[in-house]
This record gives sequence, structure tokens and C-alpha cells, in this order.
Amino acid sequence: MATLKACSALVTGANQGLGLEMVKQLLEAHCSKVFAGCLDPDGTNSEALRELAKKHPSVITIIRLDADDPCSVKESAKKVGSLVGKNGLNLLVNNAAIVANGTVQTSSIEDMKNTFNTNVIGPLLITREFLPYLRTAAKASGTPGMSCNKAAVINISTLGGSLSRMPSVYEQFPVLPYCVSKAGLNMLTVLAAEELKADEILCMALHPGWVKTEMGGEKAPINTRQSVEGILSVIGSLTEKQHGGFLDYTGKTMPW
Amino acid sequence: MATLKACSALVTGANQGLGLEMVKQLLEAHCSKVFAGCLDPDGTNSEALRELAKKHPSVITIIRLDADDPCSVKESAKKVGSLVGKNGLNLLVNNAAIVANGTVQTSSIEDMKNTFNTNVIGPLLITREFLPYLRTAAKASGTPGMSCNKAAVINISTLGGSLSRMPSVYEQFPVLPYCVSKAGLNMLTVLAAEELKADEILCMALHPGWVKTEMGGEKAPINTRQSVEGILSVIGSLTEKQHGGFLDYTGKTMPW
Ligand SMILES: NC(=O)c1ccc[n+]([C@@H]2O[C@H](COP(=O)([O-])OP(=O)(O)OC[C@H]3O[C@@H](n4cnc5c(N)ncnc54)[C@H](OP(=O)(O)O)[C@@H]3O)[C@@H](O)[C@H]2O)c1
Ligand SMILES: NC(=O)c1ccc[n+]([C@@H]2O[C@H](COP(=O)([O-])OP(=O)(O)OC[C@H]3O[C@@H](n4cnc5c(N)ncnc54)[C@H](OP(=O)(O)O)[C@@H]3O)[C@@H](O)[C@H]2O)c1
Repeated sequence: MATLKACSALVTGANQGLGLEMVKQLLEAHCSKVFAGCLDPDGTNSEALRELAKKHPSVITIIRLDADDPCSVKESAKKVGSLVGKNGLNLLVNNAAIVANGTVQTSSIEDMKNTFNTNVIGPLLITREFLPYLRTAAKASGTPGMSCNKAAVINISTLGGSLSRMPSVYEQFPVLPYCVSKAGLNMLTVLAAEELKADEILCMALHPGWVKTEMGGEKAPINTRQSVEGILSVIGSLTEKQHGGFLDYTGKTMPW
Repeated sequence: MATLKACSALVTGANQGLGLEMVKQLLEAHCSKVFAGCLDPDGTNSEALRELAKKHPSVITIIRLDADDPCSVKESAKKVGSLVGKNGLNLLVNNAAIVANGTVQTSSIEDMKNTFNTNVIGPLLITREFLPYLRTAAKASGTPGMSCNKAAVINISTLGGSLSRMPSVYEQFPVLPYCVSKAGLNMLTVLAAEELKADEILCMALHPGWVKTEMGGEKAPINTRQSVEGILSVIGSLTEKQHGGFLDYTGKTMPW
């Protein structure tokens, strides 16, 4: 984690769950600037984030960012761009996502569309709009190779997006719309990696484990603290070797 | 191909390209009933199919089927169901698809949504609505195990949906919206395989090769005849061993 010290980072979906915990631990790791993307900064859902930001106003900035709304994505990027200036943005974590239940026989068209919008089109637009600031950071770093201290896009994916692993847990987790969207997010990740290689912007997909959050539920075996400690330790150690890859929060490679 | 002799089959997107060629070769293979799903049966795009159907009215039935329109999918299933009766439908080939160009930096939201609707939600709804007739066929067969003569869903996928293979050809084929949708289709395929296992309905994904069609373009190395000969030979030899798998038209396993 020490290796993430000096960086500026944006985390989407930062008002609860894994996103909020990432903001906390990036702060503890002495990140210089943490942008907390948030669907509704003034909502009751965001109270804990507002409290935290109030205590650390020089580090944490809450940014209104609705992954489903192209205008909101554009505006959030403009705002972050003006705040990071010539140093650019080092780390973009696409964490915001929604889940929906369903099977081949029961998934609603609406759930298929909504999960795809938030979990795939959202990260696509966010990556695109923040790209100028990631490029600035990559250029400003002056070091060769790739790392999250230089410039990186981390897409929070899931075992549910793994074509080889998901079928065996489908009966326990019948969340087809979510799985389809996360397989799409994984494709977006590998193509972004290909496209942003020349800019030396690291891109990879990360499975956070099964975690006690609103999405993960109470039965999950680990809590957000444990998951995010793992995530930040993995993120901190990434190099160009993991570019375009898929790891879990312990650093193990996930099969597509 | 001989093993596909007695079966009834529905092919979507059957008015041109690979779909039309599949109808022709299923006819040559003496399939008893071939349902040719077609976006616009009366359009100029469907003239060749209409000619073919006119020559073989006892085998080929043209069915209006728009993968993007849930009502059309429902109606097509009702019609096919009434025509197959107690034998059910043996083979469903989800072949219809659209392509769209784009990268992380250029893909339009509209193209992302349209490819997802046609290439993923379409096959989901079609599989769901035709499921009763596939089940009827599986039960009627009286044989154990899985095969395309019994009951099967073949999803026409692509190398472009392969997370491990696509990045290396992305520069040549910058079709991000299409790739994202086909990775989603692959997830749908493996989950459908899991869900329909108990019904002994075989599900798998198939890459037809790079083929000279409106989609594949003139530079493609093989023609529809070669591709579909391969496809039908692969389809004819499938057993439960390939259930949930991903093969190309030569029978080689594709990596996810
Ligand atoms: N928990 C697990 O077991 C688990 C397992 C595998 C992967 N993951 C992944 O981990 C990530 C975080 O999940 P979590 O467990 O922390 O879930 P969570 O507690 O439900 O949090 C999801 C976050 O995303 C935000 N969000 C939803 N839609 C949004 C939109 N359109 N724009 C902006 N933000 C939006 C939510 O905001 P609101 O609070 O305003 O709704 C919330 O902050 C997700 O990508 C998820 O797929 C989680
Ligand atoms: N050709 C290749 O090199 C290649 C490579 C890999 C995979 N594939 C896959 O192979 C399959 C067939 O492709 P192709 O090369 O034969 O393409 P094609 O010549 O463009 O034919 C596509 C077919 O799908 C139909 N279609 C499009 N949207 C539809 C909708 N909403 N509802 C119903 N039908 C619809 C088209 O109808 P209209 O004619 O009315 O538009 C057409 O009949 C696709 O799944 C494609 O992804 C092709």
C-alpha cells in the first residue's frame, strides 16, 4: 500500500460498501487527493461519506457522478480535471455497479438493460471522459512502464463475470443480468488495455471477493476492510505484467 | 451431417449470410422442418430466402422474427410451436446479429445499446420463448444424453467475444460494442447450459470463422459454404461433453 502514497485517485460509487472503504484506506495510505464519486452527494445514503470528507477536506472531494448519465460523467470529469491540474489523475477505480436477479427464464428486459448501462456503458464513458487526465498523469510521471502511481484504470469486476467460474455457482447466485454485464465489463477492460497501452495507462479487472455490503449481503465471508486491504495491496504492486489481466483481491489470477 | 437428418430446426437471421446458407445445408441434410427466422420476410433482403422456400414448401417455413421485439419473438415461438406439435423443436440456432464499430474513445452509446439488444437480449428472449418446444423435443426423443438431434441451443458467437483472443486483433477490428455484446452472449450461453442441463438441452457457443458475408466483408478468407459445412459437421457431432463449451467451425475449442 505504501506504493500508492503520492497518488490522486477517483473511486466511483464511493458512498457505501467497497467504494467508501476504498476512500477510507486511500486516505490512510496518504493519497494526496481522493475524489469520491457519488450518485447523490446530498442523500441520506451519503452521510458517512460526507462526515469523512468534512474531517479531511484537503484530501477528500465528493464529486457528483451518476454512471448512467453521460452529462453527469462529463461534468464530473471537468471538475476533477480542473482540480488535479498539471499532475493529472493517477488512479481511476470503476467500482459503482448494480446487481439484478434473474435466470434465462426469469430475467427482465429492464434488468438486462439497467445492469448493462450502469456496469458497462458507465465505465466506458467514465474511462473515456477521464482519459485526458490519466494521460496527463502518465506523461507527468516521467518514469517508464506502468503502475497505479503513474496512471491506471481498475475495473471492479467479479467472479460472476468469469465464464469458467460462474456456472458452478449459478444455482446459489442466480444473477444472470449482473453476470452478463460483468462479462461485458471484462471485455471492455481487455480492449481498453489494448487501446491505452501506448499511453502507458495500466488497465485491469479485479474481483474483490464475496464481501459483506448491501450487494454482497450478510452471508459473505469477508468484510469491506479485509477486501479493500487486499485490493489496495494488489493495486499497489501492479506493473505492466498485469496489464489487461484479471486478479482477485488476494492477487490470484482469475480465469476468464 | 448425416446425424442431423431427422431434426427440426429454427435459424434466426436466415435471409442472408450464414443464416441463409444454414437453411440451404439443413435442407440438403434432409432436416424434416427448417424454420427460417427473418426480420422482414417481405423485404428485398429476403428474396433469395423466399425463392428457396417456394421450391421446398414442405420443409422450409419463413417465420417473421425480430430479435429486438419481444412481441415478435413471442409470436414466432407460438407459430413454430403450433407447427412442430408433439415432436417439439430439436435445434435452435441463434445466428442473427449486428455489428458496430467503435473503440473506448469512439463507441456511441446507441451502438452499445443496439448491439446488446440484438446480440444478447434477443437470444435470451428467443431461448426463453422456444424453451417449451425444445423441452418437448428433449422428452420426445426417448434417448439419454444430449445431442442436436434431441434438443439444442447453438449460439453463434465469434472470436471477437473471446477475452483472451480478441485483444490481439482489436487494432485490425475495432468493433468494441460488438465484442462486448458477444462476451455477454457467451456468458448467457454458459448460464443457459447450467440452467437447461436437467432438461438435457445442449447449449454451446460457436465461432463460424471469418466469413465473406455482409458482416464479414470481402477480405474474409472463407465463404459461407465452407463455414456452414464446418458448423453443421461440428453441430452434428456434439454430445454432452461440449455442453456449455465454445468451439469454432472446425471443431477446435476456443478460449473464453
Ligand atoms: N459485495 C460483493 O460481494 C461483491 C462481489 C463481487 C464484486 N463486487 C463488485 O464490487 C463493487 C462494489 O460493490 P459493493 O458490494 O460495494 O456494492 P454496494 O454496497 O451496493 O455499493 C454499490 C455502489 O455503487 C453505487 N452506484 C450504483 N449505481 C450507480 C450509478 N448509476 N452511478 C454511480 N454510482 C452508482 C451505489 O450508490 P448508492 O448507494 O447511491 O446506490 C453504491 O455506492 C461493484 O462493482 C460490485 O459488482 C462486489
Ligand atoms: N461473417 C463473419 O465473418 C462472422 C465472424 C464471426 C461471427 N459471425 C456471426 O455469425 C452470425 C451471422 O453473421 P453473418 O456474417 O451471416 O452476418 P450478416 O450477413 O450481416 O447477417 C446477419 C443476419 O442477422 C439478421 N438480423 C439482424 N438484426 C436482426 C434482428 N433484430 N432480428 C432478426 N434478424 C436480425 C440480418 O437480417 P437483415 O438482412 O434483415 O438485416 C441478417 O439476416 C452473427 O451472429 C455474427 O456475429 C460472423
